[in-house]
Amino acid sequence: MIEGSQIIAIADMDPAARQRAQRAHPSVQVTSDPAEILTSTRIDAVAVISPVWTHYELTKTALMNGKHVFVEKPFTLTSAQGEELVDLAERRNLRIMVDHTFLFTGAVRKISQLIDENALGKLYYYDSTRVNLGLLQHDVNVLWDLAPHDLSIMDHVIRESPEAVVATGEKHLNDYEDVAYMTLYFPGKTIAHINVNWLSPVKVRMTLIGGEKRMVVWNDLVADEKIRVYDRGVKTTSQEGVYKLLVNYRSGDMLAPQLEQVEALQLELRYFVDCITSGQTPFNDGRAGLRVVKMLEAASESLRHRGSLVKL
Amino acid sequence: MIEGSQIIAIADMDPAARQRAQRAHPSVQVTSDPAEILTSTRIDAVAVISPVWTHYELTKTALMNGKHVFVEKPFTLTSAQGEELVDLAERRNLRIMVDHTFLFTGAVRKISQLIDENALGKLYYYDSTRVNLGLLQHDVNVLWDLAPHDLSIMDHVIRESPEAVVATGEKHLNDYEDVAYMTLYFPGKTIAHINVNWLSPVKVRMTLIGGEKRMVVWNDLVADEKIRVYDRGVKTTSQEGVYKLLVNYRSGDMLAPQLEQVEALQLELRYFVDCITSGQTPFNDGRAGLRVVKMLEAASESLRHRGSLVKL
Amino acid sequence: MIEGSQIIAIADMDPAARQRAQRAHPSVQVTSDPAEILTSTRIDAVAVISPVWTHYELTKTALMNGKHVFVEKPFTLTSAQGEELVDLAERRNLRIMVDHTFLFTGAVRKISQLIDENALGKLYYYDSTRVNLGLLQHDVNVLWDLAPHDLSIMDHVIRESPEAVVATGEKHLNDYEDVAYMTLYFPGKTIAHINVNWLSPVKVRMTLIGGEKRMVVWNDLVADEKIRVYDRGVKTTSQEGVYKLLVNYRSGDMLAPQLEQVEALQLELRYFVDCITSGQTPFNDGRAGLRVVKMLEAASESLRHRGSLVKL
Amino acid sequence: MIEGSQIIAIADMDPAARQRAQRAHPSVQVTSDPAEILTSTRIDAVAVISPVWTHYELTKTALMNGKHVFVEKPFTLTSAQGEELVDLAERRNLRIMVDHTFLFTGAVRKISQLIDENALGKLYYYDSTRVNLGLLQHDVNVLWDLAPHDLSIMDHVIRESPEAVVATGEKHLNDYEDVAYMTLYFPGKTIAHINVNWLSPVKVRMTLIGGEKRMVVWNDLVADEKIRVYDRGVKTTSQEGVYKLLVNYRSGDMLAPQLEQVEALQLELRYFVDCITSGQTPFNDGRAGLRVVKMLEAASESLRHRGSLVKL
Repeated sequence: MIEGSQIIAIADMDPAARQRAQRAHPSVQVTSDPAEILTSTRIDAVAVISPVWTHYELTKTALMNGKHVFVEKPFTLTSAQGEELVDLAERRNLRIMVDHTFLFTGAVRKISQLIDENALGKLYYYDSTRVNLGLLQHDVNVLWDLAPHDLSIMDHVIRESPEAVVATGEKHLNDYEDVAYMTLYFPGKTIAHINVNWLSPVKVRMTLIGGEKRMVVWNDLVADEKIRVYDRGVKTTSQEGVYKLLVNYRSGDMLAPQLEQVEALQLELRYFVDCITSGQTPFNDGRAGLRVVKMLEAASESLRHRGSLVKL
Repeated sequence: MIEGSQIIAIADMDPAARQRAQRAHPSVQVTSDPAEILTSTRIDAVAVISPVWTHYELTKTALMNGKHVFVEKPFTLTSAQGEELVDLAERRNLRIMVDHTFLFTGAVRKISQLIDENALGKLYYYDSTRVNLGLLQHDVNVLWDLAPHDLSIMDHVIRESPEAVVATGEKHLNDYEDVAYMTLYFPGKTIAHINVNWLSPVKVRMTLIGGEKRMVVWNDLVADEKIRVYDRGVKTTSQEGVYKLLVNYRSGDMLAPQLEQVEALQLELRYFVDCITSGQTPFNDGRAGLRVVKMLEAASESLRHRGSLVKL
Repeated sequence: MIEGSQIIAIADMDPAARQRAQRAHPSVQVTSDPAEILTSTRIDAVAVISPVWTHYELTKTALMNGKHVFVEKPFTLTSAQGEELVDLAERRNLRIMVDHTFLFTGAVRKISQLIDENALGKLYYYDSTRVNLGLLQHDVNVLWDLAPHDLSIMDHVIRESPEAVVATGEKHLNDYEDVAYMTLYFPGKTIAHINVNWLSPVKVRMTLIGGEKRMVVWNDLVADEKIRVYDRGVKTTSQEGVYKLLVNYRSGDMLAPQLEQVEALQLELRYFVDCITSGQTPFNDGRAGLRVVKMLEAASESLRHRGSLVKL
Repeated sequence: MIEGSQIIAIADMDPAARQRAQRAHPSVQVTSDPAEILTSTRIDAVAVISPVWTHYELTKTALMNGKHVFVEKPFTLTSAQGEELVDLAERRNLRIMVDHTFLFTGAVRKISQLIDENALGKLYYYDSTRVNLGLLQHDVNVLWDLAPHDLSIMDHVIRESPEAVVATGEKHLNDYEDVAYMTLYFPGKTIAHINVNWLSPVKVRMTLIGGEKRMVVWNDLVADEKIRVYDRGVKTTSQEGVYKLLVNYRSGDMLAPQLEQVEALQLELRYFVDCITSGQTPFNDGRAGLRVVKMLEAASESLRHRGSLVKL
């Protein structure tokens, strides 16, 4: 439905899903065999919407067959896979776009703008809570399932790369952690933290971003006023001859800016088509996806030690 | 004002505080010298309400002079100090009560009752967020300032002791961490997490407790319905011949039980007087205070390595 | 799509709407002329989804042609029209169903059940606030636009009919009241009140129902816990020889019952088909729609006097 | 304790209250006979904090004895009483201040400032909900108990006087309405509405103020951000040759301005002493109190007819 593009074929292993797809798109080819799509000469770009462990194989085949690829997050299961795909795409001059949908929402665009304009000042911390009841995954833990949202947003809005990761967590129901916590250290003293949980009785999507000049609270579950910008802060000054630091708390207005009313996925897909057409590299390209996978890999290593500092 | 007790004397280094005290209690002795209290033969018990680094010295002197001691949290700066004080009190048959006020609130009493009755089932996690703007302390970091509340509550309601701690955090304004995170592992797979922050634009006091049978959300900032008990959960069953676990989500009623309307500090002080009179050991005694100090000590060691597993 | 039914034809005056309809339902007849539907011999039932002032004409024609009718709220512009349609349908043994969708939601079904079981006791009041920014209507005022929801719910759950109405309001932007208030008196001392407003900066959908035994707060805008049942109340007792009434406030638990997860409109349409098939009279029939119109008519008369008691 | 003033004597009929007063103010004269205060030559001003039906007598005696009077709201039981007192005070050149404490809060001061600066534009409506469980009064109905807050605020911030009143309500527990609603019409098309209720399971203190340029939501129960200013509105334009009005909805930023952190009652009492000292007429003088009483009187008359338009 994106201007400049056309849906040619849909592959799905599940017969019921194929039936639904065919009903919704009567004129489109529907198949159980992804190879029909990946090798079709009528197709320029594919979307890989499938379990994580299949991303590498499907994306690789698509690239080998000269196709641009839009792929769900997390990009790949390992950074080695991700690096291979990024290299392959560059050699073939093909676009990879990793589906970090949140980057296209009005909320994240506003946060990004605030940081770009230095409205927050030096960043102290980025603290996200993303918890709910289910959906337990059977092939990845809760960090790989939920944290990519936060990691891709941080990667996008924080103008630095984290240098080290610590992750803790616990498994209660199967072989994958269902409750987990992740700390990321940045060179400039920004600290980031992600709290993810599949066993929470209530759904929470709350991010606090503390800066020297202003602070942001992003509550993604409210209909209005998702982003609140607080003109609040702390200043310390040391006075000569004074033993203690003088601490000054500033408490000013709160502003909830009107956000762009955009349909994020639509915007992202249009951007995908634009990048293919213009040859431009998307900001959420394979390299962005790879950076997120590297953070997840480091977190997994830390988790194996029940929490240890893993350098990136 | 507690029945069975009488305020005899108040010591404070600050002249303005002494003036206020004298005005409020015209018939009470007000002094700048704590020794006058600690050595007075007219006094049976003292309350040590002073900076953490003074707790050990003041409490020790009080015990040496045969006085029962009520002391603010955290109990001491080191577990060695705490152990010495606990031993001293036991040898002299004196009571130490550590001011873990939250244990006397309607909310914590309800949580404790729910766990005692096994209404929550096996505990999966205990997750607390305790953040606000300020008040930066000048002698301890944010973990030592805010986490004792959570640690003392956990120590009281969870029927196990944690076996290991991981803590991460960052300093932005002075030499003490102002943002910190702490994970505690329990032998039975309960995981606890504490998020404390002096640089948050908004105040949050939110604890999630996930159990196999029910889950609790405790929001201490609302006037009513601080405790909400969710009849929600996840069950996994493995069926023969079936590759995946079957996951079953249960979503039932939510109950916000009416809490006891108590003035926690009053209740605690009355309990202190009762314990002195009856010779009974308070549940929030020096040993309880010491357990909290040991967790904080372990967290500090982990923090020094920017996050590492420290056994308790 | 409702089992036992089939969509045969769609009529719309708007060419763009016709295009969308045809795309969504390629095999269905799409026309600009409602008469094609109303007189078709292939059609048993029609849905009248059109401006209020057209309901009477379209419904009448449909009934004259032997069709059952599903019609949007409010049923008609006047009670005379409504009465004529109800009579006509009864004479022809046809069903009219007025689209009071809320009656099919999990929330209203729960409220209805609570009242049926006498869980609330004698009803003191029913107080609804239904405000938001827009959508200004050009043919009816805000009472006729928004209050039918509340009136149909009250009519359904309160086991009495109101005896008198008072309405106040004001026009600011066009010839129709955009802010209005409506009080309904019931014989048994229940009082109902509706606050509707097209000029509110925030959206509110909040209903308080006070009973002698329990009280309900229904917040329709939250995802979870829409219905909260408070075990709270007031009891007065007069003691012999005591001048004042003794007032006793009871403050017990709050329960947020799990609601049925139903798609209300689907349920309603299935019920429409069932009623047609079985010959059963729907509870939201023309008479129910007529009762709501009579209350609106009385409110309009009261509004014309800027507030006066109008008997029903 | 207010600078420039001194507490000389306290009168109370209740022995227990007298005991508490004497303990709190050991050097103050405490008596059961108000006449001792009202006639004392050592006293310049009295505060009448007593049941409404005693206001007239006590205030009159105080004025007759040359004393300035601070009196609780509502000022008097009847407007005749209020007028007499206002006249008496003017003839004797004495100040009356009616305790409309809300006028001194940061929230109302901000609303007043916004309206003074014309930040809201032409006012469409003022809509207040003030409900909670209890405290049932035994000498006045819920309108006389709770509405004076709203009426005094409206009187202060709206630059017009209402021209007519409609009130509805019901009695359930004793001889006074416990649920009531009041509409006030202003000449310039502002409409005001007050919803008061002693039988609500939850406490609500919410006021919506809609203006042509901006709209305000005041939630007095939240700790922060009590006042939210919405840059939202509706504009209608009529275009030549176009049948319908064009309606334009504007949805911009929301600002929660930092409010002055003041202790309202302290500020009010200081203002009382200032007005006495300087001879200045307080804005919340007897005339302001009288305007509120007249609105309540009109509301009572309307209530007697179960809702009818009563001119002011």
